[in-house]
Amino acid sequence: MALCRGGFFASTDPLKRKRAVDDNRRAIEEAAELGTDKIILVCGADPAQPLEVSRRQIFEGISSILDDARTAKIKLAIEPLHPIFANDRSAINTLAQANDLAGLLNSEWVGVAVDVYHLWWDPSLEKEIERSGKNKSLLAFHISDWKTPTVDMLNDRGLMGEGCIPLRKIRSWVENAGFKGFIEVEIFSDLYWRQDQSQFLRKIISAYKEFA
Amino acid sequence: MALCRGGFFASTDPLKRKRAVDDNRRAIEEAAELGTDKIILVCGADPAQPLEVSRRQIFEGISSILDDARTAKIKLAIEPLHPIFANDRSAINTLAQANDLAGLLNSEWVGVAVDVYHLWWDPSLEKEIERSGKNKSLLAFHISDWKTPTVDMLNDRGLMGEGCIPLRKIRSWVENAGFKGFIEVEIFSDLYWRQDQSQFLRKIISAYKEFA
Repeated sequence: MALCRGGFFASTDPLKRKRAVDDNRRAIEEAAELGTDKIILVCGADPAQPLEVSRRQIFEGISSILDDARTAKIKLAIEPLHPIFANDRSAINTLAQANDLAGLLNSEWVGVAVDVYHLWWDPSLEKEIERSGKNKSLLAFHISDWKTPTVDMLNDRGLMGEGCIPLRKIRSWVENAGFKGFIEVEIFSDLYWRQDQSQFLRKIISAYKEFA
Repeated sequence: MALCRGGFFASTDPLKRKRAVDDNRRAIEEAAELGTDKIILVCGADPAQPLEVSRRQIFEGISSILDDARTAKIKLAIEPLHPIFANDRSAINTLAQANDLAGLLNSEWVGVAVDVYHLWWDPSLEKEIERSGKNKSLLAFHISDWKTPTVDMLNDRGLMGEGCIPLRKIRSWVENAGFKGFIEVEIFSDLYWRQDQSQFLRKIISAYKEFA
């Protein structure tokens, strides 16, 4: 299992960038205490600066927590987010970029996370998953589905089978690339969060069995 | 100027695909009557079928109107749409894909359209604009801006300068690639459409002068 609370390295404000590094160090400590082996990095972006500046700050941010990760034996998984979030959540928007960044950082403690919701549309996805596998850097796999219509970009994800993401195909790419970790269901959804949560859990289990 | 009403070639329903081809033929005729020299293709996607099937249908759809385009001397501009629209509006989501498709179709009557709103996030954008230029296939350039926050994916675009798109930089890439056509302002916006339209036009002119 992974702790999903790292990242946010990009900002025009140097103080915020420093705070992000501190916060990531605490996340690494917490992950170690909780007995998990990785944290997921939502890398950050700031609409007040060019994407390439955010990307450089992300590289610098991850670089500065590498020693902490190594000491605590916690892996850092760079999660590319859908291009819809390039303005203010992540300047890393494709698996190719995440793989490139992991390559630049060149550490066994850095890898990538594949979330089908963010990446399903990308024609280079199969190739890039294969590349992550070869690099032994494929650290996490998140599933959900993309509904039509989608009424909220952040919190209107579907249960597996409710949308158009080719889940089984992407899962086969991930498994062919050697991934043996958990398949994590991540359905951010105002709709489902309003419902009875035990029932939601049963729906997730049933959808997982039928479609994932 | 371009007529923006072609495309929508992808569907699970063969009848809809045939209707789309007929509709594109009419669009070519209308474009010729109106004295414009191109139509913009929003290529289509259908959440009920895999993206690669939609992509094949788009290739077939454009192929079947090529003779009409040649006869009427109307160019066909493939417009990649933001990946947010990969489910139901376009299975062509990057300029690389549009360039590849134009290359496959291999006709002087087929090219690509660059809309900054759809493409600004893509780290390969500069390279792909250069490629379009070398292929002499860069047919249209659309501008607007990406606001933070964006409340509606389709109709909440910003005036130039209101968002985070590096307009001048992308414009310089487009012009360096040899593009000499109109710069078309395309601000789909429920917010601005509700306002006085003469005032909106003045705002557009002012934003264009200051930021584009």
